[in-house]
Amino acid sequence: MPKQVDHEARRQRIADAVCRVAARQGLEGASLRHIAAEAGVSMGQVQHYFTSKDEMLLFAFHTLSARVERRLGATVQALGQPPSTRALLRAVLVAMVPTDDEGRIEAPLWVAFLARAVVEPVLAGPLRSDALVDFGAQQLRSAQEAGEVLRSLDPELEATSLFALADGLMIRTLLDPDQAARALAAIDYRLDRIFDGACSTHAAQAPDRP
Amino acid sequence: MPKQVDHEARRQRIADAVCRVAARQGLEGASLRHIAAEAGVSMGQVQHYFTSKDEMLLFAFHTLSARVERRLGATVQALGQPPSTRALLRAVLVAMVPTDDEGRIEAPLWVAFLARAVVEPVLAGPLRSDALVDFGAQQLRSAQEAGEVLRSLDPELEATSLFALADGLMIRTLLDPDQAARALAAIDYRLDRIFDGACSTHAAQAPDRP
Repeated sequence: MPKQVDHEARRQRIADAVCRVAARQGLEGASLRHIAAEAGVSMGQVQHYFTSKDEMLLFAFHTLSARVERRLGATVQALGQPPSTRALLRAVLVAMVPTDDEGRIEAPLWVAFLARAVVEPVLAGPLRSDALVDFGAQQLRSAQEAGEVLRSLDPELEATSLFALADGLMIRTLLDPDQAARALAAIDYRLDRIFDGACSTHAAQAPDRP
Repeated sequence: MPKQVDHEARRQRIADAVCRVAARQGLEGASLRHIAAEAGVSMGQVQHYFTSKDEMLLFAFHTLSARVERRLGATVQALGQPPSTRALLRAVLVAMVPTDDEGRIEAPLWVAFLARAVVEPVLAGPLRSDALVDFGAQQLRSAQEAGEVLRSLDPELEATSLFALADGLMIRTLLDPDQAARALAAIDYRLDRIFDGACSTHAAQAPDRP
């Protein structure tokens, strides 16, 4: 009987090796030779499974995304049923900031993909996804209908701002882990002003200034 | 008489070459050979001026920072004297989003440095600077004293949020230039809520919800 090879498992093993190498030294260090050695396979095998470096990086990126989604799914499960809109948004935003071991492994990898996507448009597609912003906007619209946030708030612009904020805080915390507490404070501060606060863009509706 | 060599000009020429190469293909493509060719000097000359690749990248990063500061200085000059706090903050935030040719050249370079700084702590220092956040917080404190924004607003957390937001919008716009208008809308929306709006974190002070 011929030896059975689990091709999917081998592709996965190579993708995991890409993630480990990139987290350690960026994609700059992710040469074919390097990745083959990390995965414990030959360079020929890497080339058998991936016809180009970008194809390999794309697969590794999807591996990373799936890992983040699983982790986030578990966090949301732990919130209790049903979670409040605020708790749900907070869980997603906080998961984007590297405050624990997993985050500190995943975030550099995300930045490495980003740097590559900026100069290699074929990789930009998956990073450009609007899924999170659409999810956030939908949550904020429902919260508006439930009277939890003011109608004067713009759900699309708030959601765009919240997720761009989380990306920026991720970068800040990656560059300086001491900023983690401040990053979480900034997320809570923004959510306070959306959920507990009363915001109006019309000065006429404003309460007296102290 | 011996031939005069302008060493500073030559270092600058190499740094400019690093910027051009990185903007085109990321720092992954910035090999010593590549950069020497782009600068029109020998590899030995590059090594004469910079004892390590990181030293060269750091100098190139300072070159980029100085260029951004000059551009920003000119923008602020054009605002009229004295500019309002809101106009000043808006100019700085908008300058961080790649909406024009210069921004589209500088931003990929910034991301390339970021990806390198994440795995090479010696490069993280200059990217970690708090100068912008401190500047923003000081501006917001003055605006509070002048009664232009509510005292319930936290200048430090608002400034942290504003600049993290701008970093996130920069990334979004880099990945998808079609997002530029939305990024500017998000900045104006946030500034509206700081300067024109009335925000209170105490529900008791809130105006009636519509």
